[in-house]
Amino acid sequence: MNEKGILYLIPSPLSEAPVQDVLPQALLDTLPRLRRFVVEEVRTARRFLSRAGLKGHIDELAFYELNEHTDAATIEGYLSLFEDGCDVGLISEAGLPAVADPGAALVALCQKKGIRVHPFAGPSSLMLALMSSGLNGQCFAFAGYLPAKTDERKQALKALEKRSSAHRETEIFIETPYRSDALLGDLLGVCAPHTRLCLAVNLTAPDEDVRTKTIEQWKKEKPVIGKRPCVFLMLA
Amino acid sequence: MNEKGILYLIPSPLSEAPVQDVLPQALLDTLPRLRRFVVEEVRTARRFLSRAGLKGHIDELAFYELNEHTDAATIEGYLSLFEDGCDVGLISEAGLPAVADPGAALVALCQKKGIRVHPFAGPSSLMLALMSSGLNGQCFAFAGYLPAKTDERKQALKALEKRSSAHRETEIFIETPYRSDALLGDLLGVCAPHTRLCLAVNLTAPDEDVRTKTIEQWKKEKPVIGKRPCVFLMLA
Repeated sequence: MNEKGILYLIPSPLSEAPVQDVLPQALLDTLPRLRRFVVEEVRTARRFLSRAGLKGHIDELAFYELNEHTDAATIEGYLSLFEDGCDVGLISEAGLPAVADPGAALVALCQKKGIRVHPFAGPSSLMLALMSSGLNGQCFAFAGYLPAKTDERKQALKALEKRSSAHRETEIFIETPYRSDALLGDLLGVCAPHTRLCLAVNLTAPDEDVRTKTIEQWKKEKPVIGKRPCVFLMLA
Repeated sequence: MNEKGILYLIPSPLSEAPVQDVLPQALLDTLPRLRRFVVEEVRTARRFLSRAGLKGHIDELAFYELNEHTDAATIEGYLSLFEDGCDVGLISEAGLPAVADPGAALVALCQKKGIRVHPFAGPSSLMLALMSSGLNGQCFAFAGYLPAKTDERKQALKALEKRSSAHRETEIFIETPYRSDALLGDLLGVCAPHTRLCLAVNLTAPDEDVRTKTIEQWKKEKPVIGKRPCVFLMLA
């Protein structure tokens, strides 16, 4: 018998739309029997679980934080949560845990220690954007966050455009919302006129807006992203 | 008023597990009101829709094929399906349409013509594998299929390992099932002992098996994938 519990990877919504819009019923049915959650931020996780049908039961649950401030010893300590066959849920801020967030550290430990990991399907902002972009879905890369300083960011964008052109690879990247328009400005400034750029804004929300145009076309439209969440995709 | 319909991007299951395990209810609720589907293979799509609750109604639906044999003029012709506000569903063989399949050509046309594209969340074998691997989820790339000839494939694997090492990037790739063990043999042959390799086998099925080990550890275990679907992930 395996005495250790299972690590369930639990996707969470990207928007305020009903959780049934993006999460499978099997996940919603599994949540009520979990008691221990490792989460990127406790407040967001409590709110998500409440929306997912656990309202009134949140105080019975135990939460453990795992984010960019969590040290390795603390994460290692989370392995004790699986003792006596206890299952644990991993939840990130939004979307898939362990993709574009620090949760992979716990998954890596579980893999090392032979603790079973089971992923649930759910919304990935990166994949929703890629599917909808019409750009190359047979070869793509996610670069994460780009440098915050505009000179370095312009260099990074030029390097991405070059890589995209060399491999016919769709380049996917994100930015903290308050810097999205600055990133967009740099993109329109440094990329070639015929490079295609997809802006995937407010995914899964009622006002979702995913559009792909050439740099030349976007320059005419002068789009404003504001504070709306946006995934950027480029194909040179 | 927008007279054109919407292109719905419809994920499909990766295994024989119940569709509710991987698809959100909102998608299952949307399917019965669609009448036109562009699909990678008609037989698979009919079978999926039957499992998704349309059993007995499949003959009322119109199917249009889009796969690697479909020419550009035929795909362009599919734009007429959206006339009179008709919505159209796009379905691939398994998983997310337009990711690692030829469906992106229709999405690109819709983007060009201003036809709205709406993606549904669902199972992506690539993301389920990445989440569960414990490898770097903040920087990753999907290379698609590798060359079929063993010499070229070994070169490609070496290049991927080098790129992974240079960028701390998780490299994701797939192979047609009957070549998986040959690919695995090459991986164990050419990669460095400490490079980590994740084999994500039979995702979402009851016997799902996702494990990450070093090349050195895998060599001792001598794994056999056989004809089971497998996603490969490497971090050097």
